[in-house]
Amino acid sequence: MKASQFLISTLRQAPADAEVVSHQLMMRAGMIKRLAAGIYTYMPMGLRVIRKVEAIVREEMNRAGAIECTMPVIQPAELWSESGRFEKMGPELLRLKDRHERDYVVQPTSEEAVTDIARQEFKSYKQLPKNLYQIQTKFRDERRPRFGLMRGREFIMKDAYSFDRDEAGAKRSYQVMAAAYRAIFDRFGLSYRAVAADSGAIGGDLSEEFQVIAATGEDAIVYSTGSAYAANMEKAEAAAPAGPRPAAGEALAKTPTPGKSTCADVAELLGLPLARTVKSLVLATDELDAAGAVARTQIWLLLLRGDHDLNEVKAGKVPGLDVGFRFATVPEILEHFGTPPGYLGPIGLKKPLKIIVDREVAVMADWVCGANDKDFHFTGVNWGRDLPEPDVVADLRNVVAGDASPDGQGQLAIERGIEIGHVFYLGTKYSRAMNASFLDEDGKPKPFEMGCYGIGVTRLPAAAIEQNHDERGIIWPDAIAPFTVVICPVGMDRSEAVKSAAESLYAELLAAGVDVILDDRGERPGAMFADWELIGVPHRVTIGDKGLKDGQVEYQHRRDTAATRVPAGEIAAFVKGRLAG
Amino acid sequence: MKASQFLISTLRQAPADAEVVSHQLMMRAGMIKRLAAGIYTYMPMGLRVIRKVEAIVREEMNRAGAIECTMPVIQPAELWSESGRFEKMGPELLRLKDRHERDYVVQPTSEEAVTDIARQEFKSYKQLPKNLYQIQTKFRDERRPRFGLMRGREFIMKDAYSFDRDEAGAKRSYQVMAAAYRAIFDRFGLSYRAVAADSGAIGGDLSEEFQVIAATGEDAIVYSTGSAYAANMEKAEAAAPAGPRPAAGEALAKTPTPGKSTCADVAELLGLPLARTVKSLVLATDELDAAGAVARTQIWLLLLRGDHDLNEVKAGKVPGLDVGFRFATVPEILEHFGTPPGYLGPIGLKKPLKIIVDREVAVMADWVCGANDKDFHFTGVNWGRDLPEPDVVADLRNVVAGDASPDGQGQLAIERGIEIGHVFYLGTKYSRAMNASFLDEDGKPKPFEMGCYGIGVTRLPAAAIEQNHDERGIIWPDAIAPFTVVICPVGMDRSEAVKSAAESLYAELLAAGVDVILDDRGERPGAMFADWELIGVPHRVTIGDKGLKDGQVEYQHRRDTAATRVPAGEIAAFVKGRLAG
Repeated sequence: MKASQFLISTLRQAPADAEVVSHQLMMRAGMIKRLAAGIYTYMPMGLRVIRKVEAIVREEMNRAGAIECTMPVIQPAELWSESGRFEKMGPELLRLKDRHERDYVVQPTSEEAVTDIARQEFKSYKQLPKNLYQIQTKFRDERRPRFGLMRGREFIMKDAYSFDRDEAGAKRSYQVMAAAYRAIFDRFGLSYRAVAADSGAIGGDLSEEFQVIAATGEDAIVYSTGSAYAANMEKAEAAAPAGPRPAAGEALAKTPTPGKSTCADVAELLGLPLARTVKSLVLATDELDAAGAVARTQIWLLLLRGDHDLNEVKAGKVPGLDVGFRFATVPEILEHFGTPPGYLGPIGLKKPLKIIVDREVAVMADWVCGANDKDFHFTGVNWGRDLPEPDVVADLRNVVAGDASPDGQGQLAIERGIEIGHVFYLGTKYSRAMNASFLDEDGKPKPFEMGCYGIGVTRLPAAAIEQNHDERGIIWPDAIAPFTVVICPVGMDRSEAVKSAAESLYAELLAAGVDVILDDRGERPGAMFADWELIGVPHRVTIGDKGLKDGQVEYQHRRDTAATRVPAGEIAAFVKGRLAG
Repeated sequence: MKASQFLISTLRQAPADAEVVSHQLMMRAGMIKRLAAGIYTYMPMGLRVIRKVEAIVREEMNRAGAIECTMPVIQPAELWSESGRFEKMGPELLRLKDRHERDYVVQPTSEEAVTDIARQEFKSYKQLPKNLYQIQTKFRDERRPRFGLMRGREFIMKDAYSFDRDEAGAKRSYQVMAAAYRAIFDRFGLSYRAVAADSGAIGGDLSEEFQVIAATGEDAIVYSTGSAYAANMEKAEAAAPAGPRPAAGEALAKTPTPGKSTCADVAELLGLPLARTVKSLVLATDELDAAGAVARTQIWLLLLRGDHDLNEVKAGKVPGLDVGFRFATVPEILEHFGTPPGYLGPIGLKKPLKIIVDREVAVMADWVCGANDKDFHFTGVNWGRDLPEPDVVADLRNVVAGDASPDGQGQLAIERGIEIGHVFYLGTKYSRAMNASFLDEDGKPKPFEMGCYGIGVTRLPAAAIEQNHDERGIIWPDAIAPFTVVICPVGMDRSEAVKSAAESLYAELLAAGVDVILDDRGERPGAMFADWELIGVPHRVTIGDKGLKDGQVEYQHRRDTAATRVPAGEIAAFVKGRLAG
């Protein structure tokens, strides 16, 4: 490609609404253009990156035996009612009506459409397993779209769906996809982790997220320094406490703590470590009657160590809370504790409730909690003596750095990531809802065992930039750079030697299959270099009259701090060597 | 590709709603699957065809200097209001609201979005010309979607838009695209014609349709047997009549024609050729007041030869009718003619109106027309004697086969076509409406001169099938076949020799870059051959035990009536020779 034939459009300033660096740099580098909130045109420079991402995804999906199709963007509501999602999904599902007032949705994913294909096409176990995928436009009507392609409304996703005759087959299909995802992510040239993720109501451990590591990532991801264990924060298990509970050493005392309504304030006032305090969290579950009105409400008290945070996903798995919980209201709290939030505790309740204790709290001695009396806390609290031994003990908390790894090997560390891929075992959730079955070897209809597998194709470039940039701009990995090599001739219009050297290197690299762009726009060197550093092309060759007089040109990788002089006759081989390496 | 790893799904019967052969065959060959009216999943077999079409289009567009981008499917109404299309377009434009009740459309084309890009990006004449294109999902909410991909609602279109500094530049850009379209259509391997099309309000001759020739096509296309002249029916000019008007030979007579209200019936009754009759068509134009109510209505009488049909596009260009016309109502006709339709004519009108005469009618003598009296016609009518010489004479009719070509060379012939591409000079229609301008060399802002260029990517396979099929199924041209070659081993599971010969031919063709599929499903020969003939793979190699004993395999092109025996050792070279040829 010659730059004069392409659309290069860089900006000095990012628009004011670009809050994160990937959004700023994609706008400044002319990769995307905003059409509406969360809706972007992929400009020629950005589309080249997206196409390279797509090509890698497609190659590895095909290699893994998945078969590409393309499902419609606009899908009929009837189909979405079969799974219940038309009614249950929130306003993220973009709904519309056609000229005949029939209901449709703009696909955010395609479980319904693909299950509809399967129930028509896969009549016999002999046709299984099958994996169908598409790389296609999706829409999620985010309440607050932002961060450019990171949280857009219209985006491109690769979504794959596997169909198997039984759970064992589905698990094999899942592992094939998990391996394909590793192959895909290895090829992108990014630092990433595959982490265990919560599998929601489906259960089991067959859910992994592929997280691109970036300090600016939205997700906390957890890994062991001593093993391959890795999970997202929702999923990461807190290892069971190491030792038994120490013996009680202090007497129970009601201590004035005026105005100190947080564990941190109380610990500071009392001169105790935060880890000696216990926080009380009050939840509620509502039982509904047939008409959907609240028939009965149960209040729950959760006890966590003062320095720990509640993990709502874990809480949501505790029997009784797994129907769906909410935080209790202040009137509910007053009714059960007789005091407003800030001084709550498990001793001296006004009204019985259910208590769930985090595993760490269950092994504490001489701890501190609210006294259910404004401006007072208990100190020296001990299980069995001052209150009954805990009844329900569970892992309720987010892990913290330094926790023992749940597999017993090493300690946990935490870093930030951007979720780009997800592999998920679905079981028969959709096939049962949509009555999608095949005839098994025994002649009986069985619902398909399914899995779903997504990659955020347009999100990936944003994540790559969050991970790879500096103050001058983007630094693309070779595999997904809009161009791999840029040739910058200095004074091409004035010097026949420069022009000829640049054109001949361009022709030689093109012939070798290198994705090279020749900047023949005639820009001044400073503006030209600034453009390519902003755009982030990884390899640059600069050809100038002065160097050529000595038979030299310059090579500089985008991460290099200085250029390397290379004999003009060797530059093509030199560049090819850098690409191979 | 091995068939066992792919999704092959053929049907004996097409669904009842498939009215045309391409729809029937695409359904039966498992290329598409209906999700809703006019909305189809592109199944793996069909997607391979679409991807080949896309690749050819993309290569030639890039070669012609166009630059690919991707504009959003969901676009904000504000932008569409700038051009006026949000308000003016009919219900084909699919409108929707997001969660904040803001208006959006699903793009049917992208003039507004691309003009918005141009006004932000192309600030200077130095950046022009530019041509931006996309290959992207479109939606048109057809009232009656049908014929599968031929008239779907969701479809893939390649749409390109050129931006130039002046009309001369725009015309060059138009010609570059017209040439690129010829290159694209040549590569598809289809029989097609580029025909002049009407350019509507823009004027000029810069509008051409690319029509795939097919007896089942919706469009009539006209070409000269003696020159390169070609146009669609709307546009095709009827050559001016050859000779002068003959002298009057008959006297005017009012002749009873009871119950004969059509020209054909009258001609038959009178024993005259249909070409001696004249038909009267009554049109109306309404002048609106400021409130949009009809302030004044003008009635028009159009006279055409009885064997000719009105061309509404031509009529719509006659001064006075160019504001938009409708057919007159029966009350309006009674008011002006004093008789109901069937016996109308230009002689003895009740109330004055404007008369427009087709060029052929203006040179007739001794003609027949309605007498404005039920069950009576005039015969022996002559201009100047029985009624005034015609005032307004125009080309109002559709051409018919055998007409002289308007360029004076040869005669016109008519065939049917399916419109797949359109190149169109837009002028400043969108750039003026959207205030999209650049700074020209003289420092003054000028609106962009634009062109737009479309190809129906998903419609093309349907058109290819309409043109290329037989009673057994589809016959793909090599360039867009889902697979170019199929290897059909007979008894692969029983014979090691067959298996080995098939696998080795498969490997050799794959290595040569041939898009080959090996049918390793283990189907019986009859079913296997029927599948591939239905799917339409152009080249087939059959390998069987019996032939192999004599060192022979069989080659058959999809159009061949019988197989050719080829020595097994030469088959790879033989196939490659057929592909090259």
